[in-house]
Amino acid sequence: MLDYALLAALAAVIRTGSFERAAQQLHVTPSAVSQRVKLLEERLGTVLVVRGSPCTGTPAGQRLCQHVEQVSLLESELRHELPGIQHSGPPVTVRLAVNADSLATWFVDAMAEAPDCLFDLVLDDQEHSADWLRRGEVLAAVTASAKPVQGCDSTPLGALRYVATASPAFVRRYFPEGVDTTSLARAPRLTFNSKDRLQALWTERAFGAEIASPTHWLPSSQAFIDAALAGLGWGMNPEMLVAGHLRDGRLVALVPDQPLDVPLFWQRSRIASRTLAGITRAVLRKAGATLHQMP
Amino acid sequence: MLDYALLAALAAVIRTGSFERAAQQLHVTPSAVSQRVKLLEERLGTVLVVRGSPCTGTPAGQRLCQHVEQVSLLESELRHELPGIQHSGPPVTVRLAVNADSLATWFVDAMAEAPDCLFDLVLDDQEHSADWLRRGEVLAAVTASAKPVQGCDSTPLGALRYVATASPAFVRRYFPEGVDTTSLARAPRLTFNSKDRLQALWTERAFGAEIASPTHWLPSSQAFIDAALAGLGWGMNPEMLVAGHLRDGRLVALVPDQPLDVPLFWQRSRIASRTLAGITRAVLRKAGATLHQMP
Repeated sequence: MLDYALLAALAAVIRTGSFERAAQQLHVTPSAVSQRVKLLEERLGTVLVVRGSPCTGTPAGQRLCQHVEQVSLLESELRHELPGIQHSGPPVTVRLAVNADSLATWFVDAMAEAPDCLFDLVLDDQEHSADWLRRGEVLAAVTASAKPVQGCDSTPLGALRYVATASPAFVRRYFPEGVDTTSLARAPRLTFNSKDRLQALWTERAFGAEIASPTHWLPSSQAFIDAALAGLGWGMNPEMLVAGHLRDGRLVALVPDQPLDVPLFWQRSRIASRTLAGITRAVLRKAGATLHQMP
Repeated sequence: MLDYALLAALAAVIRTGSFERAAQQLHVTPSAVSQRVKLLEERLGTVLVVRGSPCTGTPAGQRLCQHVEQVSLLESELRHELPGIQHSGPPVTVRLAVNADSLATWFVDAMAEAPDCLFDLVLDDQEHSADWLRRGEVLAAVTASAKPVQGCDSTPLGALRYVATASPAFVRRYFPEGVDTTSLARAPRLTFNSKDRLQALWTERAFGAEIASPTHWLPSSQAFIDAALAGLGWGMNPEMLVAGHLRDGRLVALVPDQPLDVPLFWQRSRIASRTLAGITRAVLRKAGATLHQMP
Protein backbone atom coordinates (compact mmCIF):
# COMPACT_ATOMS: atom_id res chain seq x y z
CA MET A 1 0.00 0.00 0.00
CA LEU A 2 1.02 3.62 -0.47
CA ASP A 3 2.24 5.63 2.52
CA TYR A 4 -0.79 7.72 3.46
CA ALA A 5 1.06 9.98 5.93
CA LEU A 6 3.16 11.18 3.00
CA LEU A 7 0.12 11.42 0.74
CA ALA A 8 -1.83 13.42 3.33
CA ALA A 9 1.04 15.93 3.50
CA LEU A 10 1.07 16.25 -0.29
CA ALA A 11 -2.70 16.71 -0.48
CA ALA A 12 -2.61 19.39 2.26
CA VAL A 13 0.11 21.34 0.41
CA ILE A 14 -1.77 21.23 -2.89
CA ARG A 15 -5.12 22.07 -1.28
CA THR A 16 -3.91 24.95 0.92
CA GLY A 17 -1.30 26.22 -1.54
CA SER A 18 1.55 26.38 1.00
CA PHE A 19 3.78 24.20 3.17
CA GLU A 20 3.16 26.44 6.20
CA ARG A 21 -0.63 26.19 5.98
CA ALA A 22 -0.42 22.44 5.31
CA ALA A 23 1.68 22.12 8.48
CA GLN A 24 -0.91 24.03 10.50
CA GLN A 25 -3.69 21.85 9.15
CA LEU A 26 -1.83 18.65 9.99
CA HIS A 27 -0.49 19.94 13.33
CA VAL A 28 3.16 19.27 12.39
CA THR A 29 6.07 21.55 11.51
CA PRO A 30 6.53 22.94 7.99
CA SER A 31 9.85 21.10 7.76
CA ALA A 32 8.07 17.79 8.50
CA VAL A 33 5.64 18.52 5.67
CA SER A 34 8.51 19.42 3.37
CA GLN A 35 10.38 16.20 4.23
CA ARG A 36 7.29 14.07 3.62
CA VAL A 37 6.62 15.62 0.22
CA LYS A 38 10.29 15.32 -0.74
CA LEU A 39 10.39 11.66 0.34
CA LEU A 40 7.27 10.94 -1.72
CA GLU A 41 8.82 12.68 -4.74
CA GLU A 42 12.01 10.63 -4.33
CA ARG A 43 10.13 7.35 -4.01
CA LEU A 44 7.99 8.07 -7.06
CA GLY A 45 10.86 9.63 -8.97
CA THR A 46 8.87 12.66 -10.08
CA VAL A 47 8.14 16.23 -9.01
CA LEU A 48 4.70 16.49 -7.37
CA VAL A 49 4.53 20.11 -6.23
CA VAL A 50 5.42 23.25 -8.17
CA ARG A 51 6.90 25.42 -5.40
CA GLY A 52 5.41 28.88 -5.83
CA SER A 53 2.91 31.27 -4.38
CA PRO A 54 0.57 29.45 -4.19
CA CYS A 55 2.15 25.99 -4.46
CA THR A 56 0.32 23.92 -7.07
CA GLY A 57 0.31 20.25 -8.00
CA THR A 58 2.03 18.87 -11.08
CA PRO A 59 -0.31 16.56 -13.07
CA ALA A 60 1.08 13.61 -11.06
CA GLY A 61 0.66 15.55 -7.80
CA GLN A 62 -2.92 16.45 -8.63
CA ARG A 63 -3.73 12.85 -9.52
CA LEU A 64 -2.38 11.70 -6.13
CA CYS A 65 -4.31 14.48 -4.37
CA GLN A 66 -7.48 13.25 -6.05
CA HIS A 67 -6.69 9.68 -4.94
CA VAL A 68 -6.28 10.85 -1.31
CA GLU A 69 -9.68 12.53 -1.48
CA GLN A 70 -11.30 9.39 -2.85
CA VAL A 71 -9.76 7.31 -0.05
CA SER A 72 -10.97 9.86 2.57
CA LEU A 73 -14.41 9.55 1.12
CA LEU A 74 -14.36 5.75 1.27
CA GLU A 75 -13.22 6.04 4.90
CA SER A 76 -16.13 8.31 5.69
CA GLU A 77 -18.56 5.82 4.11
CA LEU A 78 -16.93 3.08 6.18
CA ARG A 79 -17.37 5.08 9.35
CA HIS A 80 -21.13 5.11 8.79
CA GLU A 81 -21.14 1.31 8.88
CA LEU A 82 -18.56 0.87 11.66
CA PRO A 83 -19.19 3.75 14.03
CA GLY A 84 -16.53 2.37 16.41
CA ILE A 85 -13.82 3.73 14.10
CA GLN A 86 -12.71 7.08 15.43
CA HIS A 87 -12.84 10.01 13.10
CA SER A 88 -9.55 11.84 12.83
CA GLY A 89 -8.85 15.00 10.89
CA PRO A 90 -11.14 17.68 9.54
CA PRO A 91 -14.70 16.98 8.30
CA VAL A 92 -15.06 15.59 4.78
CA THR A 93 -14.75 18.18 2.02
CA VAL A 94 -17.11 17.55 -0.88
CA ARG A 95 -15.91 18.85 -4.23
CA LEU A 96 -18.69 19.81 -6.65
CA ALA A 97 -18.85 21.42 -10.09
CA VAL A 98 -21.58 24.05 -10.47
CA ASN A 99 -22.46 26.55 -13.19
CA ALA A 100 -21.98 30.16 -12.08
CA ASP A 101 -25.65 31.09 -12.60
CA SER A 102 -26.89 28.23 -10.39
CA LEU A 103 -24.48 29.40 -7.69
CA ALA A 104 -25.79 32.96 -8.13
CA THR A 105 -29.44 31.91 -7.82
CA TRP A 106 -30.43 28.77 -5.89
CA PHE A 107 -27.38 26.61 -5.08
CA VAL A 108 -26.14 28.35 -1.89
CA ASP A 109 -29.54 27.73 -0.26
CA ALA A 110 -29.20 24.03 -1.06
CA MET A 111 -25.69 24.01 0.47
CA ALA A 112 -27.06 25.64 3.62
CA GLU A 113 -29.73 22.93 3.95
CA ALA A 114 -27.27 20.06 3.53
CA PRO A 115 -26.00 18.45 6.72
CA ASP A 116 -22.65 19.61 8.14
CA CYS A 117 -19.93 19.16 5.56
CA LEU A 118 -17.43 21.40 3.80
CA PHE A 119 -17.88 22.38 0.18
CA ASP A 120 -15.19 22.93 -2.42
CA LEU A 121 -16.90 24.45 -5.45
CA VAL A 122 -15.51 24.46 -8.96
CA LEU A 123 -17.29 26.83 -11.34
CA ASP A 124 -17.73 25.84 -14.96
CA ASP A 125 -20.23 26.28 -17.76
CA GLN A 126 -23.22 23.91 -17.55
CA GLU A 127 -22.14 22.40 -20.88
CA HIS A 128 -18.75 21.53 -19.37
CA SER A 129 -19.34 20.87 -15.64
CA ALA A 130 -19.94 17.15 -16.31
CA ASP A 131 -16.37 16.90 -17.67
CA TRP A 132 -15.08 17.38 -14.11
CA LEU A 133 -17.17 14.39 -13.04
CA ARG A 134 -15.96 12.37 -16.04
CA ARG A 135 -12.34 13.11 -15.05
CA GLY A 136 -13.07 12.08 -11.45
CA GLU A 137 -12.18 15.54 -10.12
CA VAL A 138 -15.54 16.19 -8.44
CA LEU A 139 -18.14 13.98 -6.77
CA ALA A 140 -21.19 15.62 -8.29
CA ALA A 141 -22.14 18.30 -10.78
CA VAL A 142 -24.98 20.62 -11.77
CA THR A 143 -24.89 20.16 -15.53
CA ALA A 144 -26.86 20.58 -18.74
CA SER A 145 -25.89 17.05 -19.69
CA ALA A 146 -28.71 14.56 -19.05
CA LYS A 147 -26.86 11.38 -20.00
CA PRO A 148 -25.36 9.81 -16.88
CA VAL A 149 -21.57 9.93 -16.73
CA GLN A 150 -20.17 6.41 -16.18
CA GLY A 151 -20.64 5.39 -12.52
CA CYS A 152 -23.03 8.27 -11.87
CA ASP A 153 -26.76 8.79 -11.36
CA SER A 154 -28.49 11.67 -13.17
CA THR A 155 -31.70 13.37 -12.00
CA PRO A 156 -33.46 16.27 -13.78
CA LEU A 157 -33.56 19.45 -11.69
CA GLY A 158 -35.73 21.71 -13.84
CA ALA A 159 -34.80 24.58 -16.14
CA LEU A 160 -33.03 27.83 -15.32
CA ARG A 161 -34.89 30.54 -17.24
CA TYR A 162 -32.88 33.27 -18.97
CA VAL A 163 -34.12 36.56 -20.42
CA ALA A 164 -32.20 38.61 -23.02
CA THR A 165 -31.94 41.94 -21.22
CA ALA A 166 -30.46 45.41 -21.64
CA SER A 167 -30.94 48.88 -20.19
CA PRO A 168 -33.62 51.15 -21.75
CA ALA A 169 -30.88 53.59 -22.87
CA PHE A 170 -29.00 50.76 -24.60
CA VAL A 171 -32.17 49.68 -26.40
CA ARG A 172 -32.84 53.27 -27.55
CA ARG A 173 -29.28 53.58 -28.86
CA TYR A 174 -28.83 50.23 -30.60
CA PHE A 175 -32.38 49.11 -31.39
CA PRO A 176 -34.24 52.32 -32.34
CA GLU A 177 -35.97 50.45 -35.19
CA GLY A 178 -36.46 47.26 -33.20
CA VAL A 179 -34.43 44.14 -32.53
CA ASP A 180 -33.51 42.27 -35.72
CA THR A 181 -30.52 40.49 -37.21
CA THR A 182 -29.07 43.77 -38.55
CA SER A 183 -29.28 45.69 -35.28
CA LEU A 184 -28.09 42.66 -33.27
CA ALA A 185 -24.97 42.44 -35.43
CA ARG A 186 -23.99 45.98 -34.35
CA ALA A 187 -25.05 46.00 -30.68
CA PRO A 188 -22.34 44.98 -28.19
CA ARG A 189 -23.28 41.85 -26.31
CA LEU A 190 -21.98 40.35 -23.06
CA THR A 191 -20.26 36.95 -23.10
CA PHE A 192 -19.21 35.16 -19.90
CA ASN A 193 -16.23 33.35 -21.49
CA SER A 194 -15.44 31.35 -24.61
CA LYS A 195 -17.63 28.48 -23.34
CA ASP A 196 -20.71 30.68 -23.02
CA ARG A 197 -23.12 29.90 -25.89
CA LEU A 198 -26.31 31.33 -24.36
CA GLN A 199 -26.43 34.58 -26.33
CA ALA A 200 -25.79 32.68 -29.57
CA LEU A 201 -28.40 30.06 -28.66
CA TRP A 202 -30.99 32.73 -28.01
CA THR A 203 -30.41 34.60 -31.29
CA GLU A 204 -30.66 31.25 -33.06
CA ARG A 205 -33.98 30.44 -31.40
CA ALA A 206 -35.43 33.94 -31.72
CA PHE A 207 -34.09 34.90 -35.17
CA GLY A 208 -33.16 31.59 -36.77
CA ALA A 209 -29.51 32.57 -37.10
CA GLU A 210 -26.33 32.82 -35.07
CA ILE A 211 -25.37 36.47 -35.32
CA ALA A 212 -21.77 37.65 -34.92
CA SER A 213 -21.44 40.90 -33.00
CA PRO A 214 -18.94 42.85 -30.90
CA THR A 215 -18.75 41.53 -27.37
CA HIS A 216 -17.47 42.25 -23.89
CA TRP A 217 -16.01 39.26 -22.00
CA LEU A 218 -17.15 39.31 -18.37
CA PRO A 219 -16.74 36.14 -16.29
CA SER A 220 -19.13 36.93 -13.38
CA SER A 221 -22.91 36.47 -13.03
CA GLN A 222 -23.34 39.63 -10.97
CA ALA A 223 -21.11 41.73 -13.25
CA PHE A 224 -23.23 40.53 -16.20
CA ILE A 225 -26.25 42.19 -14.61
CA ASP A 226 -24.31 45.26 -13.49
CA ALA A 227 -22.95 45.68 -17.03
CA ALA A 228 -26.45 45.36 -18.53
CA LEU A 229 -27.74 47.96 -16.02
CA ALA A 230 -24.84 50.28 -16.90
CA GLY A 231 -25.66 50.03 -20.60
CA LEU A 232 -22.47 48.25 -21.70
CA GLY A 233 -24.23 45.47 -23.60
CA TRP A 234 -27.12 43.05 -23.72
CA GLY A 235 -26.86 39.56 -22.25
CA MET A 236 -28.78 36.48 -21.17
CA ASN A 237 -29.49 36.96 -17.46
CA PRO A 238 -31.27 34.53 -15.11
CA GLU A 239 -34.88 35.71 -14.74
CA MET A 240 -34.62 35.18 -10.97
CA LEU A 241 -31.84 37.78 -10.73
CA VAL A 242 -33.39 40.43 -13.00
CA ALA A 243 -37.12 40.13 -12.20
CA GLY A 244 -36.99 43.22 -9.94
CA HIS A 245 -35.03 45.26 -12.50
CA LEU A 246 -37.49 44.27 -15.25
CA ARG A 247 -40.44 45.27 -13.07
CA ASP A 248 -38.88 48.64 -12.21
CA GLY A 249 -37.86 49.34 -15.80
CA ARG A 250 -34.11 49.50 -15.12
CA LEU A 251 -33.77 46.59 -17.55
CA VAL A 252 -36.00 45.56 -20.42
CA ALA A 253 -36.41 42.27 -22.29
CA LEU A 254 -35.10 42.60 -25.87
CA VAL A 255 -38.00 40.48 -27.11
CA PRO A 256 -41.00 40.00 -24.80
CA ASP A 257 -42.08 36.41 -24.11
CA GLN A 258 -38.94 34.94 -25.62
CA PRO A 259 -37.07 33.42 -22.65
CA LEU A 260 -34.46 30.68 -22.98
CA ASP A 261 -34.91 27.69 -20.66
CA VAL A 262 -31.74 25.73 -19.87
CA PRO A 263 -32.49 22.25 -18.44
CA LEU A 264 -30.19 21.24 -15.61
CA PHE A 265 -29.37 17.85 -14.10
CA TRP A 266 -27.80 16.69 -10.85
CA GLN A 267 -25.24 14.02 -11.59
CA ARG A 268 -23.41 12.36 -8.71
CA SER A 269 -20.93 9.56 -8.32
CA ARG A 270 -22.43 6.29 -7.03
CA ILE A 271 -19.26 5.57 -5.03
CA ALA A 272 -20.12 8.54 -2.79
CA SER A 273 -23.87 8.06 -2.63
CA ARG A 274 -24.01 7.88 1.17
CA THR A 275 -21.87 10.98 1.70
CA LEU A 276 -23.90 12.82 -0.90
CA ALA A 277 -27.35 11.64 0.26
CA GLY A 278 -28.09 14.75 2.36
CA ILE A 279 -26.74 17.12 -0.27
CA THR A 280 -28.71 15.37 -3.00
CA ARG A 281 -31.93 15.73 -0.99
CA ALA A 282 -31.27 19.46 -0.43
CA VAL A 283 -30.33 20.06 -4.07
CA LEU A 284 -33.46 18.32 -5.40
CA ARG A 285 -35.69 20.16 -2.92
CA LYS A 286 -34.27 23.64 -3.66
CA ALA A 287 -34.14 23.10 -7.42
CA GLY A 288 -37.74 21.83 -7.36
CA ALA A 289 -38.83 24.97 -5.53
CA THR A 290 -37.01 27.49 -7.73
CA LEU A 291 -36.44 26.14 -11.25
CA HIS A 292 -39.00 25.96 -14.07
CA GLN A 293 -40.58 22.83 -15.52
CA MET A 294 -38.33 21.19 -18.07
CA PRO A 295 -39.12 22.56 -21.58
CA MET B 1 6.81 40.20 -42.01
CA LEU B 2 4.32 37.62 -40.83
CA ASP B 3 1.12 37.00 -42.79
CA TYR B 4 -1.50 38.92 -40.80
CA ALA B 5 -4.50 37.50 -42.68
CA LEU B 6 -3.48 34.08 -41.37
CA LEU B 7 -2.76 35.46 -37.91
CA ALA B 8 -6.12 37.24 -37.73
CA ALA B 9 -7.86 33.92 -38.50
CA LEU B 10 -5.88 32.19 -35.76
CA ALA B 11 -6.67 34.93 -33.21
CA ALA B 12 -10.38 34.83 -34.07
CA VAL B 13 -10.52 31.05 -33.57
CA ILE B 14 -8.76 31.22 -30.21
CA ARG B 15 -10.81 34.20 -29.03
CA THR B 16 -14.23 32.90 -30.08
CA GLY B 17 -13.46 29.24 -29.38
CA SER B 18 -14.69 27.95 -32.74
CA PHE B 19 -13.92 28.01 -36.48
CA GLU B 20 -17.56 28.80 -37.28
CA ARG B 21 -17.73 31.84 -35.02
CA ALA B 22 -14.32 33.03 -36.21
CA ALA B 23 -15.63 32.80 -39.79
CA GLN B 24 -18.68 34.89 -38.89
CA GLN B 25 -16.52 37.49 -37.23
CA LEU B 26 -14.19 37.73 -40.23
CA HIS B 27 -17.01 37.49 -42.81
CA VAL B 28 -15.44 34.50 -44.56
CA THR B 29 -16.39 30.81 -44.72
CA PRO B 30 -15.37 28.37 -41.95
CA SER B 31 -13.35 26.43 -44.50
CA ALA B 32 -11.36 29.60 -45.35
CA VAL B 33 -10.59 30.04 -41.63
CA SER B 34 -9.60 26.40 -41.35
CA GLN B 35 -7.29 26.65 -44.39
CA ARG B 36 -5.61 29.79 -43.03
CA VAL B 37 -4.96 28.25 -39.63
CA LYS B 38 -3.69 25.04 -41.25
CA LEU B 39 -1.38 27.00 -43.53
CA LEU B 40 0.01 28.92 -40.58
CA GLU B 41 0.57 25.67 -38.67
CA GLU B 42 2.37 24.17 -41.66
CA ARG B 43 4.58 27.24 -42.14
CA LEU B 44 5.50 27.36 -38.46
CA GLY B 45 5.76 23.59 -38.17
CA THR B 46 3.71 23.43 -34.98
CA VAL B 47 0.12 22.91 -33.83
CA LEU B 48 -1.49 26.23 -32.85
CA VAL B 49 -5.08 25.28 -32.05
CA VAL B 50 -6.35 22.39 -29.92
CA ARG B 51 -9.52 21.42 -31.83
CA GLY B 52 -12.22 20.94 -29.21
CA SER B 53 -15.31 22.53 -27.79
CA PRO B 54 -14.26 25.27 -27.29
CA CYS B 55 -11.13 25.37 -29.46
CA THR B 56 -8.19 26.65 -27.43
CA GLY B 57 -4.70 27.84 -28.28
CA THR B 58 -1.57 25.80 -27.70
CA PRO B 59 1.13 27.83 -25.90
CA ALA B 60 2.51 28.85 -29.31
CA GLY B 61 -1.00 29.69 -30.57
CA GLN B 62 -1.72 31.82 -27.50
CA ARG B 63 1.57 33.65 -27.89
CA LEU B 64 0.71 34.49 -31.51
CA CYS B 65 -2.79 35.56 -30.48
CA GLN B 66 -1.25 37.95 -27.96
CA HIS B 67 1.06 39.30 -30.66
CA VAL B 68 -1.93 39.97 -32.96
CA GLU B 69 -3.64 41.88 -30.16
CA GLN B 70 -0.53 43.99 -29.55
CA VAL B 71 -0.30 44.80 -33.25
CA SER B 72 -4.02 45.76 -33.34
CA LEU B 73 -3.39 48.04 -30.44
CA LEU B 74 -0.43 49.70 -32.12
CA GLU B 75 -2.62 50.17 -35.20
CA SER B 76 -5.28 51.84 -33.12
CA GLU B 77 -2.70 54.23 -31.62
CA LEU B 78 -1.47 54.97 -35.17
CA ARG B 79 -4.99 55.76 -36.28
CA HIS B 80 -5.19 58.53 -33.69
CA GLU B 81 -2.19 60.22 -35.31
CA LEU B 82 -3.12 59.51 -38.91
CA PRO B 83 -6.90 59.76 -39.01
CA GLY B 84 -6.87 59.23 -42.76
CA ILE B 85 -6.21 55.52 -42.25
CA GLN B 86 -9.51 53.69 -42.49
CA HIS B 87 -10.53 51.55 -39.59
CA SER B 88 -11.41 48.02 -40.57
CA GLY B 89 -12.75 45.28 -38.35
CA PRO B 90 -14.41 45.39 -34.94
CA PRO B 91 -13.60 48.05 -32.30
CA VAL B 92 -10.48 47.49 -30.17
CA THR B 93 -10.91 44.99 -27.36
CA VAL B 94 -9.03 45.95 -24.21
CA ARG B 95 -7.97 43.04 -22.03
CA LEU B 96 -7.70 43.86 -18.31
CA ALA B 97 -7.02 41.87 -15.14
CA VAL B 98 -9.28 42.75 -12.21
CA ASN B 99 -9.81 41.25 -8.77
CA ALA B 100 -13.29 39.75 -8.32
CA ASP B 101 -14.23 42.08 -5.45
CA SER B 102 -13.40 45.23 -7.45
CA LEU B 103 -15.57 43.89 -10.27
CA ALA B 104 -18.34 43.22 -7.74
CA THR B 105 -18.17 46.73 -6.26
CA TRP B 106 -16.92 49.66 -8.35
CA PHE B 107 -15.26 48.51 -11.57
CA VAL B 108 -18.33 48.07 -13.81
CA ASP B 109 -19.24 51.74 -13.21
CA ALA B 110 -15.76 52.73 -14.37
CA MET B 111 -16.17 50.56 -17.49
CA ALA B 112 -19.49 52.24 -18.23
CA GLU B 113 -17.89 55.71 -18.03
CA ALA B 114 -15.00 54.82 -20.33
CA PRO B 115 -15.40 55.81 -23.96
CA ASP B 116 -16.69 53.20 -26.43
CA CYS B 117 -14.47 50.16 -26.43
CA LEU B 118 -14.90 46.47 -25.73
CA PHE B 119 -13.63 44.91 -22.53
CA ASP B 120 -12.19 41.44 -22.05
CA LEU B 121 -11.87 40.90 -18.30
CA VAL B 122 -9.65 38.34 -16.64
CA LEU B 123 -10.42 37.74 -12.95
CA ASP B 124 -7.56 37.04 -10.57
CA ASP B 125 -6.63 37.71 -6.96
CA GLN B 126 -5.27 41.22 -6.35
CA GLU B 127 -1.96 39.64 -5.28
CA HIS B 128 -1.68 37.92 -8.67
CA SER B 129 -3.40 40.21 -11.18
CA ALA B 130 -0.11 42.04 -11.91
CA ASP B 131 1.35 38.72 -13.13
CA TRP B 132 -0.93 38.95 -16.17
CA LEU B 133 0.57 42.36 -16.94
CA ARG B 134 4.09 41.03 -16.40
CA ARG B 135 3.41 38.22 -18.87
CA GLY B 136 2.03 40.74 -21.38
CA GLU B 137 -1.39 39.07 -21.43
CA VAL B 138 -3.34 42.16 -20.38
CA LEU B 139 -2.88 45.90 -20.95
CA ALA B 140 -3.73 47.00 -17.42
CA ALA B 141 -4.56 45.57 -14.02
CA VAL B 142 -6.23 46.43 -10.73
CA THR B 143 -3.66 45.02 -8.33
CA ALA B 144 -2.39 45.10 -4.75
CA SER B 145 1.12 45.47 -6.11
CA ALA B 146 2.37 49.09 -5.94
CA LYS B 147 5.72 48.58 -7.66
CA PRO B 148 5.36 49.34 -11.38
CA VAL B 149 5.68 46.31 -13.63
CA GLN B 150 8.38 46.95 -16.26
CA GLY B 151 7.02 49.25 -18.96
CA CYS B 152 4.01 50.21 -16.85
CA ASP B 153 2.78 53.18 -14.83
CA SER B 154 1.29 52.57 -11.38
CA THR B 155 -1.21 54.88 -9.65
CA PRO B 156 -2.73 54.30 -6.17
CA LEU B 157 -6.51 53.86 -6.27
CA GLY B 158 -7.36 53.72 -2.57
CA ALA B 159 -8.19 50.79 -0.32
CA LEU B 160 -11.03 48.30 -0.59
CA ARG B 161 -12.34 47.82 2.95
CA TYR B 162 -13.25 44.31 4.12
CA VAL B 163 -15.20 43.27 7.22
CA ALA B 164 -15.07 39.78 8.76
CA THR B 165 -18.75 38.87 8.72
CA ALA B 166 -21.08 35.99 9.61
CA SER B 167 -24.77 35.47 10.30
CA PRO B 168 -26.04 35.99 13.87
CA ALA B 169 -26.98 32.27 14.07
CA PHE B 170 -23.46 31.28 13.02
CA VAL B 171 -21.96 33.56 15.69
CA ARG B 172 -24.25 32.06 18.37
CA ARG B 173 -23.26 28.53 17.32
CA TYR B 174 -19.49 28.90 16.90
CA PHE B 175 -18.62 31.91 19.05
CA PRO B 176 -20.86 31.60 22.14
CA GLU B 177 -17.93 32.64 24.36
CA GLY B 178 -16.63 35.25 21.93
CA VAL B 179 -14.24 35.25 18.99
CA ASP B 180 -10.77 34.02 19.92
CA THR B 181 -8.05 31.78 18.49
CA THR B 182 -9.71 28.63 19.93
CA SER B 183 -13.19 29.30 18.57
CA LEU B 184 -11.76 30.51 15.21
CA ALA B 185 -9.91 27.21 14.82
CA ARG B 186 -13.25 25.34 14.95
CA ALA B 187 -15.54 27.69 13.02
CA PRO B 188 -15.82 26.97 9.26
CA ARG B 189 -14.54 29.85 7.18
CA LEU B 190 -15.05 30.81 3.56
CA THR B 191 -12.08 30.90 1.19
CA PHE B 192 -12.36 32.15 -2.41
CA ASN B 193 -9.58 29.91 -3.77
CA SER B 194 -6.05 28.85 -2.87
CA LYS B 195 -4.77 32.37 -3.67
CA ASP B 196 -7.15 34.01 -1.18
CA ARG B 197 -5.18 35.10 1.90
CA LEU B 198 -7.64 37.67 3.27
CA GLN B 199 -9.12 35.54 6.08
CA ALA B 200 -5.61 34.53 7.20
CA LEU B 201 -4.41 38.14 6.98
CA TRP B 202 -7.29 39.33 9.15
CA THR B 203 -6.78 36.68 11.89
CA GLU B 204 -3.09 37.62 11.86
CA ARG B 205 -3.87 41.31 12.31
CA ALA B 206 -6.67 40.82 14.83
CA PHE B 207 -5.24 37.91 16.85
CA GLY B 208 -1.53 37.93 16.07
CA ALA B 209 -1.64 34.44 14.57
CA GLU B 210 -2.58 32.64 11.39
CA ILE B 211 -5.24 30.17 12.50
CA ALA B 212 -5.92 26.93 10.63
CA SER B 213 -9.61 26.06 10.42
CA PRO B 214 -12.05 24.06 8.31
CA THR B 215 -13.04 25.94 5.18
CA HIS B 216 -15.47 26.03 2.30
CA TRP B 217 -14.00 26.94 -1.11
CA LEU B 218 -16.30 29.32 -2.96
CA PRO B 219 -14.93 31.23 -5.97
CA SER B 220 -17.56 33.99 -6.30
CA SER B 221 -17.92 37.37 -4.53
CA GLN B 222 -21.70 37.20 -4.42
CA ALA B 223 -21.76 33.56 -3.26
CA PHE B 224 -19.37 34.56 -0.44
CA ILE B 225 -22.03 36.92 0.89
CA ASP B 226 -24.89 34.49 0.23
CA ALA B 227 -22.98 31.76 2.11
CA ALA B 228 -22.33 34.09 5.06
CA LEU B 229 -26.04 35.02 5.11
CA ALA B 230 -26.99 31.33 5.00
CA GLY B 231 -24.74 30.57 7.97
CA LEU B 232 -22.25 28.34 6.14
CA GLY B 233 -19.16 30.16 7.38
CA TRP B 234 -17.53 33.50 8.13
CA GLY B 235 -15.55 35.40 5.54
CA MET B 236 -13.99 38.73 4.61
CA ASN B 237 -16.62 40.61 2.62
CA PRO B 238 -16.29 44.07 1.00
CA GLU B 239 -17.93 46.60 3.33
CA MET B 240 -19.69 48.17 0.31
CA LEU B 241 -21.52 44.90 -0.39
CA VAL B 242 -22.53 44.06 3.18
CA ALA B 243 -23.27 47.51 4.68
CA GLY B 244 -27.03 46.99 4.30
CA HIS B 245 -26.91 43.49 5.78
CA LEU B 246 -24.86 44.76 8.75
CA ARG B 247 -27.33 47.59 9.32
CA ASP B 248 -30.31 45.22 9.20
CA GLY B 249 -28.63 42.62 11.44
CA ARG B 250 -28.65 39.81 8.82
CA LEU B 251 -24.86 39.82 9.13
CA VAL B 252 -22.67 40.88 12.04
CA ALA B 253 -18.99 41.85 12.23
CA LEU B 254 -16.99 39.20 14.11
CA VAL B 255 -14.96 41.94 15.80
CA PRO B 256 -16.33 45.50 15.73
CA ASP B 257 -14.01 48.22 14.38
CA GLN B 258 -11.52 45.72 12.99
CA PRO B 259 -11.78 46.09 9.20
CA LEU B 260 -9.04 45.06 6.79
CA ASP B 261 -8.06 47.66 4.20
CA VAL B 262 -6.53 46.31 1.00
CA PRO B 263 -4.68 49.00 -1.00
CA LEU B 264 -5.20 48.77 -4.75
CA PHE B 265 -3.26 50.21 -7.68
CA TRP B 266 -4.00 50.79 -11.35
CA GLN B 267 -1.08 49.60 -13.42
CA ARG B 268 -1.19 50.01 -17.19
CA SER B 269 1.18 49.42 -20.05
CA ARG B 270 2.85 52.56 -21.42
CA ILE B 271 2.69 51.16 -24.96
CA ALA B 272 -1.11 51.48 -24.81
CA SER B 273 -1.32 54.76 -22.93
CA ARG B 274 -3.38 56.52 -25.57
CA THR B 275 -5.90 53.67 -25.96
CA LEU B 276 -6.16 53.43 -22.18
CA ALA B 277 -6.37 57.17 -21.47
CA GLY B 278 -10.17 57.29 -21.23
CA ILE B 279 -10.35 54.09 -19.20
CA THR B 280 -7.63 55.31 -16.86
CA ARG B 281 -9.53 58.55 -16.23
CA ALA B 282 -12.76 56.65 -15.49
CA VAL B 283 -10.99 54.13 -13.23
CA LEU B 284 -9.26 56.86 -11.20
CA ARG B 285 -12.48 58.85 -10.87
CA LYS B 286 -14.65 55.90 -9.77
CA ALA B 287 -12.02 54.48 -7.42
CA GLY B 288 -11.51 57.93 -5.89
CA ALA B 289 -15.24 58.21 -5.24
CA THR B 290 -15.73 54.76 -3.72
CA LEU B 291 -12.51 53.42 -2.14
CA HIS B 292 -11.07 54.40 1.25
CA GLN B 293 -7.93 56.45 1.90
CA MET B 294 -4.82 54.30 1.72
CA PRO B 295 -4.00 52.87 5.16
